[in-house]
Amino acid sequence: MTGATNLVQHEIVGDVYEPPPPLAPFVPPRTRSAAEEARTLVASAQVGALATLSEDGTPWASMVTYGAMRDGAPVLYVSVLAEHGRNLARAPGASLLVVDGTAQGDPLDAGRVTLAGRARQPSDAEVETVRAAHLAALPGAKAYEAFGDFSFWVLGVERVRWVGGYGRMDSAGAADYAAAEPDPIAPAAPGAVAHLNADHGDALLAIARSLCGYSDATAARATRLDRYGLDLDVETPRGAAPARAGFEEAPLRDPAQLRGATVELARRART
Amino acid sequence: MTGATNLVQHEIVGDVYEPPPPLAPFVPPRTRSAAEEARTLVASAQVGALATLSEDGTPWASMVTYGAMRDGAPVLYVSVLAEHGRNLARAPGASLLVVDGTAQGDPLDAGRVTLAGRARQPSDAEVETVRAAHLAALPGAKAYEAFGDFSFWVLGVERVRWVGGYGRMDSAGAADYAAAEPDPIAPAAPGAVAHLNADHGDALLAIARSLCGYSDATAARATRLDRYGLDLDVETPRGAAPARAGFEEAPLRDPAQLRGATVELARRART
Repeated sequence: MTGATNLVQHEIVGDVYEPPPPLAPFVPPRTRSAAEEARTLVASAQVGALATLSEDGTPWASMVTYGAMRDGAPVLYVSVLAEHGRNLARAPGASLLVVDGTAQGDPLDAGRVTLAGRARQPSDAEVETVRAAHLAALPGAKAYEAFGDFSFWVLGVERVRWVGGYGRMDSAGAADYAAAEPDPIAPAAPGAVAHLNADHGDALLAIARSLCGYSDATAARATRLDRYGLDLDVETPRGAAPARAGFEEAPLRDPAQLRGATVELARRART
Repeated sequence: MTGATNLVQHEIVGDVYEPPPPLAPFVPPRTRSAAEEARTLVASAQVGALATLSEDGTPWASMVTYGAMRDGAPVLYVSVLAEHGRNLARAPGASLLVVDGTAQGDPLDAGRVTLAGRARQPSDAEVETVRAAHLAALPGAKAYEAFGDFSFWVLGVERVRWVGGYGRMDSAGAADYAAAEPDPIAPAAPGAVAHLNADHGDALLAIARSLCGYSDATAARATRLDRYGLDLDVETPRGAAPARAGFEEAPLRDPAQLRGATVELARRART
């Protein structure tokens, strides 16, 4: 797996906006892989939508809470009295959708990931590890242990489909998903993006002009931050375009590195 | 369909809290039916989780946006390039999960509904009605009409499972769902609940004592409002309990009636 993003090849029947290209030669900086995006989204939430197979053979969507194992496998705790519990007991094929709850605005531009695979009940040897993974994310789930109809299920992830928003999407396999790390700076990213836009518009413009090839940029706004770099929306007399600048010290390993990494980008843009 | 709620009969293996009963004879006021709850949730959102059947026969969960027809049938607009679009074209059985996005706190106490049925592409005669239903909810979806790979799909609803939170759940059939109305006061309810709790704690306590049978109540907090009445959490020396008071003029037909209906409850509680 690379970090490359594959664009959907839509059949164009009307006017579709084509952003202007950079004016200077530009090597696209590394981005998170689909597996990293998926692990990051899964780590950011405790609620998802589970698809299971109902008795009549049609798919059933239901809300579930989950914690994640160290390899990113979601751990559910569901009642066999609920339709999804009965479904898992009968047909283990299932998938879990997790949507970025922090996204603002157009819902179709929100990040989301589907993890598809097979659900299994933990063996006696692993049940304490599985239980601990669920309760670490959802301490309140202890209350369900008063009910005898709840069981833990581990969704063994076989394939992953990530959609990051418009034109950002890719797939990953089981091994890449299990091996990838959740981005450690993700929890701090929305606040840092807001701060950059509120207080450092000049630095963002310098970055767009010097580091992203948009020497004709007239404005730049931060849209996303990850451990590898900074995404921008850039305004030019030729129209608006997305752009990206990579951190020198990527991948960042701690949110505390975020400030230094963006200061270094601004310094590099101005020299 | 009645408005009654069927409780899941959990198998009890530990300590489970039993709220104290009312001290005075108490007739439970009408609540929204499962069909009304479902129509209200579906009307409140434009984003859901779709379960479709993948080529390998396992269920696939994905995010979709939707508008609703007058009978509550969701209208999707999906690309045949996306997995869910290919799935619907091959196997029309599908379900849509909609979760209450305004719920705070414990995610398992949030309202949600699953609509299960069969998806179909509209006939030439109905395509304009279907398109209008989608675009009324999602004006931005017009942009997708520039792509030839998007089609409208109507999810014909055959069965409905509503979960309102802990101990509040019920099912509904196709006819009840189609005939039910979204609760017209729902958009105003969260604000009105917050206002009652901020400014009218004395009135809520009087309502709990006089109208809900909790004559020993020491505090009461509003938790939900609907067109039929007001839900409370009541504190008593015997423990906490949920309670409900019905509006005299139920069902309300307009958010503008909400203030008068709650004032009337307080007046009745004090006389």
